[in-house]
Amino acid sequence: MTTETVIAVRYPDCDMMHTAHHSVFAVWYEAARMDFFEKMGFSFKDMSSRGINPPLVDLHIKYRAPVHYPGEVTIKTRISFHAPKKLELSYELYYEGSLASEATSFHIWTGPDMKSIDLAAALPEVYAKIEAADPQTKDRDG
Amino acid sequence: MTTETVIAVRYPDCDMMHTAHHSVFAVWYEAARMDFFEKMGFSFKDMSSRGINPPLVDLHIKYRAPVHYPGEVTIKTRISFHAPKKLELSYELYYEGSLASEATSFHIWTGPDMKSIDLAAALPEVYAKIEAADPQTKDRDG
Amino acid sequence: MTTETVIAVRYPDCDMMHTAHHSVFAVWYEAARMDFFEKMGFSFKDMSSRGINPPLVDLHIKYRAPVHYPGEVTIKTRISFHAPKKLELSYELYYEGSLASEATSFHIWTGPDMKSIDLAAALPEVYAKIEAADPQTKDRDG
Amino acid sequence: MTTETVIAVRYPDCDMMHTAHHSVFAVWYEAARMDFFEKMGFSFKDMSSRGINPPLVDLHIKYRAPVHYPGEVTIKTRISFHAPKKLELSYELYYEGSLASEATSFHIWTGPDMKSIDLAAALPEVYAKIEAADPQTKDRDG
Repeated sequence: MTTETVIAVRYPDCDMMHTAHHSVFAVWYEAARMDFFEKMGFSFKDMSSRGINPPLVDLHIKYRAPVHYPGEVTIKTRISFHAPKKLELSYELYYEGSLASEATSFHIWTGPDMKSIDLAAALPEVYAKIEAADPQTKDRDG
Repeated sequence: MTTETVIAVRYPDCDMMHTAHHSVFAVWYEAARMDFFEKMGFSFKDMSSRGINPPLVDLHIKYRAPVHYPGEVTIKTRISFHAPKKLELSYELYYEGSLASEATSFHIWTGPDMKSIDLAAALPEVYAKIEAADPQTKDRDG
Repeated sequence: MTTETVIAVRYPDCDMMHTAHHSVFAVWYEAARMDFFEKMGFSFKDMSSRGINPPLVDLHIKYRAPVHYPGEVTIKTRISFHAPKKLELSYELYYEGSLASEATSFHIWTGPDMKSIDLAAALPEVYAKIEAADPQTKDRDG
Repeated sequence: MTTETVIAVRYPDCDMMHTAHHSVFAVWYEAARMDFFEKMGFSFKDMSSRGINPPLVDLHIKYRAPVHYPGEVTIKTRISFHAPKKLELSYELYYEGSLASEATSFHIWTGPDMKSIDLAAALPEVYAKIEAADPQTKDRDG
């Protein structure tokens, strides 16, 4: 499962170099991630109502080509690794048809007390959706 | 009572015009306001512990001259009107010695349920600090 | 002429009060303004290619009701005053069907040297579009 | 050479989780980097006047512990690798005395046309400062 999220570049996203500032990409990737979760069937509202969240512990962004205003970026998002307590998403960001940036975000699952949980045990029906969205990890591990 | 808050301009504060973007001024004025409250003796931590806050209901900013990176701005903050349920602060922002922007923010006092409260009744010792910081309002009303 | 611009609230737009931070509204209103100019027939790209811009000199925002994530806001934008050297836009921001904020932005027209210009003389075909978009000002003045 | 940069957390830096949003760290690390360059003797103004910049091509941030408002972070910055056309900086971010985040940023040197340049050839006196600030790389390579 790979989702596509389209985001319009805003005027203040761009700095004195006339290109989108690198910190904005982190906001864009998060918006793409939220979109992925919603399309997968475990939206932010679902997370909030259950007190279960995937806080970010590691973010790695590569900047390959500048992004300008006005314009829009398209982000392709997929799960690149999953385990009962961990999740990794990978992103490709396209601008004017070319790959302009790539990223990987690593998350742990936490419960209402903000401590690590085993999602497969806590929410098996959600974990099944993750397994369905990322069959590669299973193949890789087995 | 007038406080002075010095804030360093950051590179991404500036947009393609090579001047600080107008939305950043709202963040700077809020930082100056928080500094004012702390120096007056009713810090954000004090507010949070009592569940009493001054949410912003009206913000008016005038932009007189551009602000650039690198550099810093100095904001002079004072109370320009107070009443038991309301508060208005006024700001002057200086850049390289000249007035670059002015603003006024209007607030109501709210309690833990986010509804309007009478601060003079709820926290008389805090309200006395506001009266001391803004003797003009009293003169104006009387 | 009134345009409608729909903007998705993002997770980091919201602060510890769980509502969109007031500085974000300035970014949203600017996005609505850019959308208005494009739909009126004088886009940011047109402005840039001619070196003519409407810098913001005054911004007044009223906050009437909180805006939350996830959700979206709809901004209705119109010209509320125009003259050959000046422009005022007015905005209404709706969230979940209710008016959550209003704003007015005041601009002057500047040329490539960033000095004030008379748009009616410099770009009469653009000024005609502004007059068509805001017939009220003419009535008001005459 | 390791620099220390102290940055105050701002109220809107924190999101609904009451912790500084991950995108803000990218802004903080950039401020620390600018401070490092200035203290090393090649400030942003020096770069701009010569048309030579170190654009970011790779950013890797680890989030170890939450950061809250009010408070401040201290960032320790050093060069972790240098070559005539490349530069890597590494950062440690401390909050309340503990390591809360770490990061690495990778840069290439570009000239006025935004194309890669050899800094050792273009600005030998600046490159000497980098070599002095990072004697480890030389040892590592030799």
